[in-house]
Amino acid sequence: MELKETKISCESVFTGKVFEVTVDQVTLPDGRSARRDVVHSSGGVVILPVDADGGVTLVRQFRYVQGEALLEAVAGKLEAGEEPLPAARRELREETGLTAKKWVELGYIASSPGFLTEKLWLFLAMELTEGEQELDDGEFLNAEKYSFTEAMAMAADGRIHDGKTLAILLRARARLDGEVRE
Amino acid sequence: MELKETKISCESVFTGKVFEVTVDQVTLPDGRSARRDVVHSSGGVVILPVDADGGVTLVRQFRYVQGEALLEAVAGKLEAGEEPLPAARRELREETGLTAKKWVELGYIASSPGFLTEKLWLFLAMELTEGEQELDDGEFLNAEKYSFTEAMAMAADGRIHDGKTLAILLRARARLDGEVRE
Repeated sequence: MELKETKISCESVFTGKVFEVTVDQVTLPDGRSARRDVVHSSGGVVILPVDADGGVTLVRQFRYVQGEALLEAVAGKLEAGEEPLPAARRELREETGLTAKKWVELGYIASSPGFLTEKLWLFLAMELTEGEQELDDGEFLNAEKYSFTEAMAMAADGRIHDGKTLAILLRARARLDGEVRE
Repeated sequence: MELKETKISCESVFTGKVFEVTVDQVTLPDGRSARRDVVHSSGGVVILPVDADGGVTLVRQFRYVQGEALLEAVAGKLEAGEEPLPAARRELREETGLTAKKWVELGYIASSPGFLTEKLWLFLAMELTEGEQELDDGEFLNAEKYSFTEAMAMAADGRIHDGKTLAILLRARARLDGEVRE
């Protein structure tokens, strides 16, 4: 059986600051119909800056919806019509002050594909130059540096809880180890 | 500065089948207030069944919000008040027909901590016995078996897009390699 669902209708029920919610009706693979509640978000970028010694810079920020401060890869939302790479350059500079001469695309991930449209584009940033953080108004975060080995250990043992950070560490390690060619 | 945001108010604006949306007002670390739009979901479980030869079973299903079929770890939602391990046993049996004698907890991840409360509890399922799939009504998916090496390669090169699947593969590999002790 072909695994496909086709949209019949789509009603917008909430438009907020960072996402919209629609209630859609779809046709299932067996011809019946079903309801799908969907959170639409613009997607974003995730950046792992790796310096010449293999050190990575992560950011710690309070996440209101999780009720705690989380250690995460640098990340930010795509603005309307924006391409991922320019957004990645901007977010890296704003959150860490770093600029990178070498950028390696690591594809994208879907954050929660059951009901969230969000796609996140992953980048490795290398050949780094340090500068000053330029945080958005109302944005509070600390940049922290770890060895790659320590970051992987924290991802593995649960000190890092953020899904996108585990995802970029997996892809970055494979790329840096030469398991995936550029 | 302490990185904390405190809730002032919370208004429910949408209650759907799998998530609720609230618009909250919070106090920022510098004392000003800001708005936070929040998607509340019950969270879920993610299971990686690994057989004696190191083979893993993944599932392929059409994801309406992504517009394509994705290859993912076995997963499902927590029902109200349900503990993660019983939910993991149920979802593994329903989606793949497998039952496991050995379960290893791999902690949790936050899927999209900027606006989504979802926490996913990760489990390695081992010492497997095969059985029949028991899919929910309206659920369509195919179980597919891969070597662990092939699954890691697909996660690394982008054939697997699903964030939770990358996360569980990273933690499973570290655990199976003995980098993290049980």
